[in-house]
Amino acid sequence: MSELLLKAKTAKTASRKLAVVSTEDKNQGLLAIAEALEKNIDKIVQENKKDIDAAVANGTSQAIIDRLVLNEARILDMVTGLKQIVELKDPIGEVLFENKIESDLVLQKVRVPFGLIGMIYEARPNVTIDAVGLALKTGNAVLLRGGSNAFHSNLCLVAIVKEALQETAISPDTIQYIEGTDRKLVEEMLTLNEYLDLVIPRGGAGLIQMVVQKATVPVIETGVGNCHLYIEKEANIDMAIEIAINAKTQRPGVCNAIETILVDQAWADRSLVKLIDALVEKQVKILGCPTSQKLDARISAASDEDYYTEFLDYIVTLKVVQSVDEAIEHIETYGSRHSEAIITDNDNVAAKFLNHVDAAAVYHNASTRFTDGFQYGFGAEIGISTQKLHARGPMGLPEMTSYKYRVYGKGQIRK
Amino acid sequence: MSELLLKAKTAKTASRKLAVVSTEDKNQGLLAIAEALEKNIDKIVQENKKDIDAAVANGTSQAIIDRLVLNEARILDMVTGLKQIVELKDPIGEVLFENKIESDLVLQKVRVPFGLIGMIYEARPNVTIDAVGLALKTGNAVLLRGGSNAFHSNLCLVAIVKEALQETAISPDTIQYIEGTDRKLVEEMLTLNEYLDLVIPRGGAGLIQMVVQKATVPVIETGVGNCHLYIEKEANIDMAIEIAINAKTQRPGVCNAIETILVDQAWADRSLVKLIDALVEKQVKILGCPTSQKLDARISAASDEDYYTEFLDYIVTLKVVQSVDEAIEHIETYGSRHSEAIITDNDNVAAKFLNHVDAAAVYHNASTRFTDGFQYGFGAEIGISTQKLHARGPMGLPEMTSYKYRVYGKGQIRK
Repeated sequence: MSELLLKAKTAKTASRKLAVVSTEDKNQGLLAIAEALEKNIDKIVQENKKDIDAAVANGTSQAIIDRLVLNEARILDMVTGLKQIVELKDPIGEVLFENKIESDLVLQKVRVPFGLIGMIYEARPNVTIDAVGLALKTGNAVLLRGGSNAFHSNLCLVAIVKEALQETAISPDTIQYIEGTDRKLVEEMLTLNEYLDLVIPRGGAGLIQMVVQKATVPVIETGVGNCHLYIEKEANIDMAIEIAINAKTQRPGVCNAIETILVDQAWADRSLVKLIDALVEKQVKILGCPTSQKLDARISAASDEDYYTEFLDYIVTLKVVQSVDEAIEHIETYGSRHSEAIITDNDNVAAKFLNHVDAAAVYHNASTRFTDGFQYGFGAEIGISTQKLHARGPMGLPEMTSYKYRVYGKGQIRK
Repeated sequence: MSELLLKAKTAKTASRKLAVVSTEDKNQGLLAIAEALEKNIDKIVQENKKDIDAAVANGTSQAIIDRLVLNEARILDMVTGLKQIVELKDPIGEVLFENKIESDLVLQKVRVPFGLIGMIYEARPNVTIDAVGLALKTGNAVLLRGGSNAFHSNLCLVAIVKEALQETAISPDTIQYIEGTDRKLVEEMLTLNEYLDLVIPRGGAGLIQMVVQKATVPVIETGVGNCHLYIEKEANIDMAIEIAINAKTQRPGVCNAIETILVDQAWADRSLVKLIDALVEKQVKILGCPTSQKLDARISAASDEDYYTEFLDYIVTLKVVQSVDEAIEHIETYGSRHSEAIITDNDNVAAKFLNHVDAAAVYHNASTRFTDGFQYGFGAEIGISTQKLHARGPMGLPEMTSYKYRVYGKGQIRK
């Protein structure tokens, strides 16, 4: 049996026992992992150095190297993350409803784990611990496959996790990491319907598209955010500019940052120059439509392709629109259904925008940067779903669960 | 643009308007369809006759022809079905929760339609009207692809639906039927991620596996039921036999009928003969393990493959087991995670079975035949999901919806 099949099977078998482990035992397992990470900081940093050295030798960009680095502060962040997960309410076993149905049967809908979740991710090795923590708390085993450039870091973290679980009620078998480096292994993993209940990819658009294309296992698509800010005719000037700057520049490399600003013609005629002043001051490059270019010479021409692009950088596209309908239409055509915002003092127009725009999160007079499990008060986040099946937007612990029906009878048969 | 792309695009565009149509307008649309069906009974029967004649000419089995037939009674059943959907609560717009979050933003989780749902189904033409009714009530457009043997019936029904919608607030464009007969069209449909938010296959195991294998669009797997009845040591004899007979023979051709009976050794030693008497009386053929064959000569040998088989017929496999653990293990190995039942007077053993068995519905002292949206009191059913993502077990109206987050601010930015 191949490494992949063996690990999938082992994890699936272990998942059955994990499904009925008590909250207290799960929390003790998580705390044991947290303690082991704290004890092994030096070892983790040492193994991480192998990945960093290899990345530097390969000429990897500084941005990627930044994501790969594990130092004491980042390891302690993982420890804190695990402790936060311990504090969260265990969703498993929650009775979602209970009814006496027609035939006098008692019908209970109960939250249960998925079973075995596959996680495919890139770069950041902290995702390993994040995924382990969220999976174990929700009673799920995990089959992990991290990026090859974090190979040593991930193996070291998984070894520490498995050793820490030895003395707990959680079997180390619940955590499996695919070590084989052949890319075909990922494709095989995506078709393990017999073992995997779900796959969650976390990474760039390329990885996510590959998973969606190849998987026969159910997938939750995450993360790609081509988000828009629509500055409506009746938008407060200062608020619009402050939110535009925040949503674009507070952290341009994340999925909930905006990529396009849609500006109402009347507002643009009055205040576009002020908005451009603010963007230019923040070193943002602006690509716009011909109408916007006539209003401000600092705007370069945007191509149709540019409006489809998630720049994740100090670049923004801009378009002058004539109505809320045109704004909605533009978002429908170019957006990725992640996060969309309108700035306006007109509540009716805002309501229309919030109702009609099809996205995981729609905002009135606030920055799109709030689309985040922690900001939403979920206390955790496994990713941000951009599909509509099962989970949409930030996914916390309940989104990592399924349910089953328990039915209690006294010998009832169907007539 | 191909028929498929054109229809998908048209339906998707129409879905945006449908998403915000009022409950009253949706109900009026459904009633208009019901009225039109009633008016056109003769025409439907006439078109249906073309399919029946072709099926007879092709030597189609009587069982399939029975499913294809549309007569006055069946058409009136569709009319009643639509009227029942009108009476159901509209799930769209329901606020699932509302919170003031840290940054003083108001966060609302609101139920919304998926958008465009693809339905791929076989034989029964009444599924066309069922799907239209459930989709419209939940604000979803549908792209339908029925079985080729119900071609004329389906086209006639869709034409009646579209004409009935002309004078209503629902655009006829929301309902599209793929007429092209090339089987490759189905594969193309399954990869229309740009337009389709979800695909639901309804039919035999072959169709469902094909959809799971080929789709890049999110899928809800439905229907395959390899269900078990476990008669535990402390099972009441009469109750066990009555439920076994009901679960196997009340309607053997459906997914929630049982295929295997697991019998505790001690119970079998006392009462297996009585159970076999009852099954034989109902003309059920019994395939069993060597232990069971020693207890009753009317049992033929079962192969390993037989335990994997969904017979949908008057055939049952039987196995004598030594413990609840062995029963759980057998179900884990051979089952399809649909419906599983235990008969016992021992509540502790029952609780163990209900907790450990991984299936959409688990029963204590009741027939598996109750796994059904109407029996569960949902008032509708689009299918029975055997996957864990999004929906499990019988799917009613809420399972045909997604959600979005609406966030209301006063100019908040992320710090």
